[in-house]
Amino acid sequence: MAKVAIMGYGTVGSGVYEIIAQNSEKLCKNTNGTAVEVKYILDIRDFDDHPHKELFTKDFNDILNDPQVSVVAEVMGGLHPAYEFTKSLLEAGKSVVTSNKELVATYGTELLDTAVKNHVNYMFEASVGGGIPVIRPLHQDLTANHITKIAGILNGTTNYILNEMINNGSTFEDALKDAQEKGYAERNPAADIEGHDACRKIAILASLASGYEVDYSGIETEGIVNITLDDVKCADKFGGRIKLIGYAEFLENGRIYSLVSPMFIPDECPLAGVNDVFNAIMVTGDCVGDLMFYGAGAGKLPTASAVVADVVDCVKHEKSPKKILWVKPQKELMADENDKQFAYFVRACDSEENIKKIFADAKIKPGAADGEMMFITKPMMAEEISRKLNELQKTVTAIKVLG
Amino acid sequence: MAKVAIMGYGTVGSGVYEIIAQNSEKLCKNTNGTAVEVKYILDIRDFDDHPHKELFTKDFNDILNDPQVSVVAEVMGGLHPAYEFTKSLLEAGKSVVTSNKELVATYGTELLDTAVKNHVNYMFEASVGGGIPVIRPLHQDLTANHITKIAGILNGTTNYILNEMINNGSTFEDALKDAQEKGYAERNPAADIEGHDACRKIAILASLASGYEVDYSGIETEGIVNITLDDVKCADKFGGRIKLIGYAEFLENGRIYSLVSPMFIPDECPLAGVNDVFNAIMVTGDCVGDLMFYGAGAGKLPTASAVVADVVDCVKHEKSPKKILWVKPQKELMADENDKQFAYFVRACDSEENIKKIFADAKIKPGAADGEMMFITKPMMAEEISRKLNELQKTVTAIKVLG
Repeated sequence: MAKVAIMGYGTVGSGVYEIIAQNSEKLCKNTNGTAVEVKYILDIRDFDDHPHKELFTKDFNDILNDPQVSVVAEVMGGLHPAYEFTKSLLEAGKSVVTSNKELVATYGTELLDTAVKNHVNYMFEASVGGGIPVIRPLHQDLTANHITKIAGILNGTTNYILNEMINNGSTFEDALKDAQEKGYAERNPAADIEGHDACRKIAILASLASGYEVDYSGIETEGIVNITLDDVKCADKFGGRIKLIGYAEFLENGRIYSLVSPMFIPDECPLAGVNDVFNAIMVTGDCVGDLMFYGAGAGKLPTASAVVADVVDCVKHEKSPKKILWVKPQKELMADENDKQFAYFVRACDSEENIKKIFADAKIKPGAADGEMMFITKPMMAEEISRKLNELQKTVTAIKVLG
Repeated sequence: MAKVAIMGYGTVGSGVYEIIAQNSEKLCKNTNGTAVEVKYILDIRDFDDHPHKELFTKDFNDILNDPQVSVVAEVMGGLHPAYEFTKSLLEAGKSVVTSNKELVATYGTELLDTAVKNHVNYMFEASVGGGIPVIRPLHQDLTANHITKIAGILNGTTNYILNEMINNGSTFEDALKDAQEKGYAERNPAADIEGHDACRKIAILASLASGYEVDYSGIETEGIVNITLDDVKCADKFGGRIKLIGYAEFLENGRIYSLVSPMFIPDECPLAGVNDVFNAIMVTGDCVGDLMFYGAGAGKLPTASAVVADVVDCVKHEKSPKKILWVKPQKELMADENDKQFAYFVRACDSEENIKKIFADAKIKPGAADGEMMFITKPMMAEEISRKLNELQKTVTAIKVLG
């Protein structure tokens, strides 16, 4: 019998409780015979109406000091006290699983190290892509590959907003309001629309793929607040979609080029067809080529499904903890913008002749507005595109093309 | 140090050898410190020019009787002697990993049982979807889910042919010839185009998801040989794509409805955008909702990448074998066609009035040819659609709609 504690009884926490309570037989089979049972739920709020209110506690020490508890699901979110709780639990010899991307992106290196030293597991499948299996596949199934690139639609809220713009012709403001009304976006939507959420997630994926801590604060991050309805319409006319992409490329010089940015996705790329609040992560390996993992990136039961899979994995590996691990890099890890070329999707007001002079080999089409042209450049460095855009009469938009 | 043997030095086998030889350091890290080394390659052919010709043997007993060999990659294909070799190796306490879908679909139940009894592993990630992680995600990441549905593009050759028809207006015959010239299709393409390859694969996935052996010979299988260029064009006009789908639905009565058939995939479904020789598997779980796994379904290095991931997993779990397992069902497992309703995409020659009379609520559009209409029916049983199609003046095509 494995006794589990859940810290945080919000959306995900209640989902974890429901799944464990309702699927005990199936989980027991999948742990090779060990039953899994919730012994505590930690939350500062009162849940006196809960049918199992005896499980609730407000005192973290009940969990920490109970030798029966072997696995703890930290689904409380935020950095503090989640960090202090997790650290204490790992040091006390308990495995911890989490959906807390902020914590993993900020203290993951230290917590993974603490887990290894105490012969327990720290797992975080639910921290990226909600219910989509991506952490374990990256680590286990692609073990034979050198990962060369990761490009993901990692934030469902922004994907929903962009799709509303494309499909219903909504402005950014109206689409955001709609997302807030449907409960997809927070009242303060900054973390989503400014790209910070996607930034934490790509930092976690890049750390896992490279084996080195990728500090999220060093990732250039741009959200979708400057994307207009005209941008979206023009992209559609040109044969592509604008998506907020978390991007990491693992260069041959050992460095990592990473950014979060709206990108032009050509219609042929499977990421272009990812609609609604769905997430998808494209991973490229030197042996396997392009893979894509698609599914619900958030939500109560999808995220809880990933948390419970980690709980089961911890129970199965109690005596032989896995070592999912990255370490702090000893030298500069991050490439700068001049280590990587992108093609650009550009909307500009200028003559076709002038554009052809400045951007040789550009594919040019008339734009949505009068006197406006749109084109895709050949790949070039950031410095070169800035210089060339300055030579145009007027640049409306310039967006990197995912290639 | 884990010593590995490779049985069969064809496309996949040579890929497995290359990956292990070239990535020893990375693999060692991922096995938590155990080095992985190829000790034997079994093949009946001569490879005197090979830089490591000393590894080759024609005698299976060299592998069977060498106590140093702990993991064997069976990538020889076919049922015999692959079955006898695998069985002997498992009984001798060696783990076996395989890409052999035919063997897993035919003798998987017995071989999994043999593995468990001998405390070793039998793994088969590469048998379905080539390099796409799907077996391990189904078994590990979705452990908290009741799987309700699997729908997959499981055969790259047929997907290539259908895409050539859609994108280049090729006839079926020309597209097949092109696929053969490019090396995607065998000279005898029956296993691909008649659906037998996809049938083995959906049988494996359905067995894994249900925990019961799904006998592939009981799965109704129809290939793409009757799909015409006009079918493909009409589907496109109606807003969908025709794809060969391996389908399994896990009904509430405990039975499984499975078939392999060309289906109409609405453009909004992510499976519609899967082009070229790529495969993709959509899995629906009661908690996680729809997931899709996309990537290269065949090819030397993608498939070898999956085989080597299984080798590493075996090395890591030598002392605690996993129990991926299904058993023979004790009662009738397979649902019949009247347990499941499908909507149908129909091309027919008849008046709109008559069609509306027979198929209430059908969405009707003019067809590609004179006097032809096309429509999508509401979901109905096989018996009902047959009866109604007989009432039409002339039915050209009726294809199930994936919904």
